[in-house]
Amino acid sequence: MTSVYVAILCGLVAVAYGILTSGQVLRQPTGNERMQDIAAAIQEGAKAYLGRQYTTIAIVGVIVAAVLFATLGLLSTTGFVIGALLSGVAGYVGMNISVRANVRTAEAARGSLQGGLTTAFRSGAVTGMLVAGLGLLAIAGFFWYLVGPGGRAPNDRAIVEALTALAFGASLISIFARLGGGIFTKAADVGADLVGKVEAGIPEDDPRNPAVIADNVGDNVGDCAGMAADLFETYVVTLGVTMISIALLIPADAAELLRLMSLPLIVGGVCIVTSIIGTYMVRLGRGGSIMGALYKGFWTSALLSIPAIYAVTRWTLGDMSAVIGGAGFLDPAGDDLTTGADTATQGSGAIASFTGNDLFWCMLIGLAVTGLIVWITEYYTGTNYRPVKSIAKASETGHGTNVIQGLAISLEATALPTIVIVVAVIAAYKLAGIIGIAFGATAMLALAGMVVALDAYGPVTDNAGGIAEMAGLEDEVRARTDALDAVGNTTKAVTKGYAIGSAGLAALVLFGAYTTDLATYFPDLTVDFSLSNPYVIVGLLLGALLPYLFGAFGMTAVGRAAGAVVEEVRGQFRDNPGIMQGTSRPNYGRTVDLVTRAAIREMIIPSLLPVLSPIALYFIVRAVDGQASAFAAVGAMLLGVIVSGLFVALSMTSGGGAWDNAKKYIEDGNHGGKGSEAHKAAVTGDTVGDPYKDTAGPAVNPMIKITNIVALLLLAALAGGAG
Amino acid sequence: MTSVYVAILCGLVAVAYGILTSGQVLRQPTGNERMQDIAAAIQEGAKAYLGRQYTTIAIVGVIVAAVLFATLGLLSTTGFVIGALLSGVAGYVGMNISVRANVRTAEAARGSLQGGLTTAFRSGAVTGMLVAGLGLLAIAGFFWYLVGPGGRAPNDRAIVEALTALAFGASLISIFARLGGGIFTKAADVGADLVGKVEAGIPEDDPRNPAVIADNVGDNVGDCAGMAADLFETYVVTLGVTMISIALLIPADAAELLRLMSLPLIVGGVCIVTSIIGTYMVRLGRGGSIMGALYKGFWTSALLSIPAIYAVTRWTLGDMSAVIGGAGFLDPAGDDLTTGADTATQGSGAIASFTGNDLFWCMLIGLAVTGLIVWITEYYTGTNYRPVKSIAKASETGHGTNVIQGLAISLEATALPTIVIVVAVIAAYKLAGIIGIAFGATAMLALAGMVVALDAYGPVTDNAGGIAEMAGLEDEVRARTDALDAVGNTTKAVTKGYAIGSAGLAALVLFGAYTTDLATYFPDLTVDFSLSNPYVIVGLLLGALLPYLFGAFGMTAVGRAAGAVVEEVRGQFRDNPGIMQGTSRPNYGRTVDLVTRAAIREMIIPSLLPVLSPIALYFIVRAVDGQASAFAAVGAMLLGVIVSGLFVALSMTSGGGAWDNAKKYIEDGNHGGKGSEAHKAAVTGDTVGDPYKDTAGPAVNPMIKITNIVALLLLAALAGGAG
Repeated sequence: MTSVYVAILCGLVAVAYGILTSGQVLRQPTGNERMQDIAAAIQEGAKAYLGRQYTTIAIVGVIVAAVLFATLGLLSTTGFVIGALLSGVAGYVGMNISVRANVRTAEAARGSLQGGLTTAFRSGAVTGMLVAGLGLLAIAGFFWYLVGPGGRAPNDRAIVEALTALAFGASLISIFARLGGGIFTKAADVGADLVGKVEAGIPEDDPRNPAVIADNVGDNVGDCAGMAADLFETYVVTLGVTMISIALLIPADAAELLRLMSLPLIVGGVCIVTSIIGTYMVRLGRGGSIMGALYKGFWTSALLSIPAIYAVTRWTLGDMSAVIGGAGFLDPAGDDLTTGADTATQGSGAIASFTGNDLFWCMLIGLAVTGLIVWITEYYTGTNYRPVKSIAKASETGHGTNVIQGLAISLEATALPTIVIVVAVIAAYKLAGIIGIAFGATAMLALAGMVVALDAYGPVTDNAGGIAEMAGLEDEVRARTDALDAVGNTTKAVTKGYAIGSAGLAALVLFGAYTTDLATYFPDLTVDFSLSNPYVIVGLLLGALLPYLFGAFGMTAVGRAAGAVVEEVRGQFRDNPGIMQGTSRPNYGRTVDLVTRAAIREMIIPSLLPVLSPIALYFIVRAVDGQASAFAAVGAMLLGVIVSGLFVALSMTSGGGAWDNAKKYIEDGNHGGKGSEAHKAAVTGDTVGDPYKDTAGPAVNPMIKITNIVALLLLAALAGGAG
Repeated sequence: MTSVYVAILCGLVAVAYGILTSGQVLRQPTGNERMQDIAAAIQEGAKAYLGRQYTTIAIVGVIVAAVLFATLGLLSTTGFVIGALLSGVAGYVGMNISVRANVRTAEAARGSLQGGLTTAFRSGAVTGMLVAGLGLLAIAGFFWYLVGPGGRAPNDRAIVEALTALAFGASLISIFARLGGGIFTKAADVGADLVGKVEAGIPEDDPRNPAVIADNVGDNVGDCAGMAADLFETYVVTLGVTMISIALLIPADAAELLRLMSLPLIVGGVCIVTSIIGTYMVRLGRGGSIMGALYKGFWTSALLSIPAIYAVTRWTLGDMSAVIGGAGFLDPAGDDLTTGADTATQGSGAIASFTGNDLFWCMLIGLAVTGLIVWITEYYTGTNYRPVKSIAKASETGHGTNVIQGLAISLEATALPTIVIVVAVIAAYKLAGIIGIAFGATAMLALAGMVVALDAYGPVTDNAGGIAEMAGLEDEVRARTDALDAVGNTTKAVTKGYAIGSAGLAALVLFGAYTTDLATYFPDLTVDFSLSNPYVIVGLLLGALLPYLFGAFGMTAVGRAAGAVVEEVRGQFRDNPGIMQGTSRPNYGRTVDLVTRAAIREMIIPSLLPVLSPIALYFIVRAVDGQASAFAAVGAMLLGVIVSGLFVALSMTSGGGAWDNAKKYIEDGNHGGKGSEAHKAAVTGDTVGDPYKDTAGPAVNPMIKITNIVALLLLAALAGGAG
C-alpha cells in the first residue's frame, strides 16, 4: 500500500506544482488596455463555450450514469462520475490558465523570445501536470479507497468494474470535448481564413474580421481544453487497464497482487516528478532553437525516468516473479502452445511467467516507443525534412498538386509508427506476455505530463500572436510569437501520434481484458475468435468502418460550420461597412455564439457512434446467430476499430501537421514566399489539414477507447454486475 | 464434363462476339484527315507505351516463372504463363479497339447522340466480352486439360496449385498494368491540366498543349487496358478460388466434385450470353437519358441471369447435396460448434451441408450485391444526389472547403458498401458456409462482361471528345461527347466498387483456402489464428499498412510525373513561341515518351510490395518466434490487407468520382458555372481526385489478391510443391 501512498503524494505534488506555477504565470504583466480587452473577449468566449459544452455533456452523462447505476450499481457509477468530473476539471483548468497566459506571453515576447517561451511553456506545464496529476489522483485515490477503507481484495470484480467505469467516465467526456472543441476551433479557423484572408484580403488575426475572436477562442477550447481531456482519458485508461489486466490475470495472493497493481501508479508518480524536473530545463541555448529548448525538457524527463522507473520497480516488487494465469492467455513463445487454448475461454493453467526485471525492460520499450514517435513525427511534420519540403515544392504547380502530395505524405506517415508499434508489441510480449505490453503502454503514458506541457504551450503562443496582431504591437513581437507557434505545430502532432500509438499498444491489452471477462462471466460459452469465423470478419469490417464514418462526420461538421461562419461574416461586412474601414467594431460575440451552437450540435451524434455501435452489433448478431457469435463479432470490432483507427488517426494528424508547416516554410521565404501562387496553394493545403489534424484525427483516439470500454461494461452488465 | 464444354463454348461465343462487333466498329467512317492524324498519334503513343510496359513486365514475369518452375514445377509455371499472357492479351486487345473506336465515335457523334453512344458502347462491349471470355477460356480450358487429357482427379493438389498459379499470373500482370497505366493516365492528365488550363489558360484538349496527346493516350492505356487487365484478374481469381475451395473442402467422389467444380464455369458461361443479350438493349429512350440507356443493358443482363443461373445449377447439380468437410471449416450455425476446431488445423469431420438450391440463393445474393453497389456508387458519384451537390456547394467558399467536403464524402462512401458486404457474407455463410460466399462472389463476377463494357465505353467517349476538340469539330459534337463522358465517371466508379466489393466477399474464401492448405501441408503444426495471439495483431496491422503505403507510392508517383510533364510543357512553350500562336506544332511524342518512362519507372517498386511482403513477414517472424507464429502472422496479414484495403479503395474511388462530377455539375451552370471561383475550386478537387480514383484506389484490388495468392504459393513452395 506504500506505493499507492507515494503515487497519491506525487499526484498532490503535481497539483501543487500547478498552483504555484499558475501563480508565477498570473503575476506576469498583462500588457496594455487594448491587449487586456482582447484577452477578456477571448476569456469570455471560451468560458461561455465550455460552459455550454459541459452542460450538454452533463445531460448525456446523467443519462449514462443512470444506466450504469441500474445495471452495474453504485460503485461503478461513482467511478464513472469521478472519471467524468476530473476529465472535465482537467480541461477546464487547462483552458483557464491558457486564456490568461496568452496575453502575458504576448507582453513577455515584447521583452524577449526567452520571456515569451517561458511564460507560454509554464502555462502549458500547468495543464500538463494537472492532467497527469489529476489522472493519477483519480485512479490511485479510488483504488486506495476500494482496497483500504472499502476492504475489498485487489482483484475483486467490483474493483475491476469500478476502474473500468472510471475509465469510461474519462473517455466519454473526452470524446465530446475533443470533437466539440475540435469542431469549434477549426470551424472558426477555416471560416475566418476563408472570408478574411481569401475574400476580404485582410491578414490573419486582423481585428476587423468578426470571426477573429472565435478563432482565438477555438485555440483554447479545442487545442487546449479538448486535448487535455483527451490525454487525461488516455492516461486513466492506460493505467487503469494495466491494473485491471493484472487483477484478471495474475493468480497471486492479495499482497503480491497489491504490489503489482500499485506499480503502474508509482511509475506514474515518479515520472510526474521527472517531468517537473524536465520543465525547468526548457531554456533557449546559444543557437536559439526553440525546438531544441523544448527537447531539452523532454529528453531530461525521459532519461531521468529510466533510473526512476528501475528504482521504484525494484522497490515495489523486489525479486518477485509472477506467473500469468487465468483464462484467455497465451504463451509468449507461441510455438510451444500445446494446450490449444486459443478461444480464450478454455484452459486456465499458468502459462507465462515474468520477473520485476522483465517489467522494467517492457517499460523501457514504452519509453523507446515514445522517443521514436517524437522523432518520426518531427521528421514528417518538421520544416527541415523531405516530407514538408516536398509539399512546399508541390505547391509551385498549384492547389491540386499541393493536396495530392499532402495526401501522399499523410498515407506514408503511417508506416514507421506502425512498424515501431509492431516491434514493441512483440518484444514486450516475449518478455512478459500481455502484462508486458500493458506496462509498455503505462511507461509511455507516464511521460504524459511533459508531453501535454509541450502541446498545451502551442495554443498559448498562437493566441499571443493573435493578440499581438489585434492590439497592433510591434512587428518583432509577432515575429517572435510566430516562431514560437511554428514549433507548436510539430509538438501538437507529436501528442496525437503519441496518444494513438499508446492506443495501438493498449489494444491487445483491452482485447485481453475483454476475452478474460468473457471467460469469467460466461464460463460455459465457447466463443471463437479465430479469423476463419465469419462473425470475426464482420466485426473487423464494421469496427474498421467506425473511424471512417466518424471522420466523415467530423470533416462534414467543420465544413458546414465554417460555411455558416462565412455567411455570418459576409453578413456583418454587408450590414456594417464601417467594419472594414476600421470605424466600427464587428460583433465578435455573435460569431462566437454561432460557432458554439454549431459545435455543440455537431458533436453529439458522432460521439455516440462508438458508444452505441458495440451494443447494437451485439444485439443484432445475437438475434441472427446467438450469443457466442455476437461476442465474437463485438470482440473483433474492438480490434477492427484499432486496426483501422490507427491508420486514419496517424495519417490525418501527420498529414495535417505537414500541410501546416509547408505553408509556414513557404512563408519563411521559400518557393516565392508570402503572397506567391505557391503560398496560395499552401494555404489551401493548410485549410484541408485543419479538420484532418485537429478535429477528425485526434478524436479517433478516445473513440477507440470508448468502443473497447463500452464492450467491457456491456459484458459486466449482461452478467448482472458485481457492485 | 459437359458443363465444362458448355463453358468453353460460351467463352468462344464471347470471342466471336468480340471479333464480329470489332468488325462493326471498324467499318464505321473515321472522319476527316485531321481527325485521322490525331487518332493515329494516339494509337502510336498507346502502342509504344503498352509495348514498353509489357516488355518490362515480361522481365519480371520471366524471373517469377523461373522461381515458380524451381519451386512448384512445370504445371504451375504453365498456369502462371497462361494467366499472365491472357491478362496481357485482354488489356492489349481492349486498348486496340479503344484507340480505333475513339475517332469513329467522334465522327458518329457528328450525326447523332445515339450514333456516338452505339459506337462507343460497342467498343466497350468488345473489351468486356473479351475480358470475360478469355478469362473463362483460360480457366475452363486449363481445367479441362488437367482433368481430361491430363487424367488428374479434380481435387488433385497439382490442380489446386496450377489454378492458383494461373490466378497469380493474371494478378501479377494486372497490378503492373493497373498501376503503370494509372500513373501514365493521371500524370498526363494532371500535368496537361495544370500547365494548360491553369497556367496557359487554354481549354482542355487544346491542340497547342504538348501534353494533349499523352492525356488521350492515358485514357486508353490506363482506363481501358489497365482496367481490362484488372477485371480479367478479378474474374480469374474469383472463379479460380471458388473451384479451389470446392476441391479443398468437399469430401465427395470425383464425379460429384467435377460437377460442383464446373458450376462456376458454366455460370460464368451463361452470364456471358445474358451479357451479350444485354448489350443489344443499350439504346436511348424517349427521355434521352444516357445513364438510362446503359442501365437498360445492365438490368437486362442481371435479370436474365437469374433464371439462367437457376437453370444451369439445376442442370449441373440436380438435387445433389454436398457436405463441407476437410479441415478448417466452421459450422454456419456458429453457436453449435462443439468440436472446438477453431485453429483451422484440427478436426476434419463434415460440419456443414448444402444443396444446389442453397448455392442458387447464394448466387442471387451475389447478384443483389452487384445491383446494390451499382446503386450506391451512383448515389455517391452521380450529379443528382446530395454527395456531389454538397461538394459543388462547398466549392463556393474555396479550394479548401471543396477538398474538405470531398474527403468527407470519400470517408462516408465506405459505409453502405461495407454494410452490404457484411450482410451478404453472413447470409451466404448461413446458407452454404464458405462455399456459399465463394459462389456469391462468382455470381458477382459472372456479370463482368457487362460491367466492363459499361466501363470501357468511358475512355472511348473521353478520347472522342478530345479528338473533336483538337480537330476543331462543331461545338455540338463536343457537347454530345461530353454528355457521354459524364456518365463514364459514374460507370468507372461502379466497376471499381464492384471489383473491390467482390474482393471483400472473396477475402474469407481466400483465407479459408490458406488455412486449409496449411492443414494439408503442415498437418502437425498448430497455428493459432485467434485474435488474442499477438502475431495475429501484428499481421493485421502490417497487412492494413500495405494499402496505405501502396497509396502513398501511387499518389507520389503521379505528383512527381505530373510535375515533370509541367516542366516539359513549360520548356516547349519557352523554346518554341510559335506553339501558343498556333503556327508551329508542339512535340507531342516527347511528352508521351517522358510520361512512358516515368510510369514504367514508378510502377515497379509498389507492384512488388504485395508480392514480397508476405514472404518477408514469414521469414522474419519465423526467425523470431518459429513457424507457427509466422503462419499466423501471414494469415492475419491477408485479412489486414482486405480490412484496410476495402476502405482505402472504396473511399478513393468514390471520392474521386464525386469530385470529378462536382466539377461537371458546376460546368453545367450551377454555382456560377465555368470560369467562376467555384469552378476553379472544383478543378482543384478534380485534380486531387484523379490519382485517388484512377491510380492508387483501383490498384488496391489486384494488390489484395496478390498478397493472398503469394501466401498460398508460399505454402505450396514450403511444402515442396506437387507438380
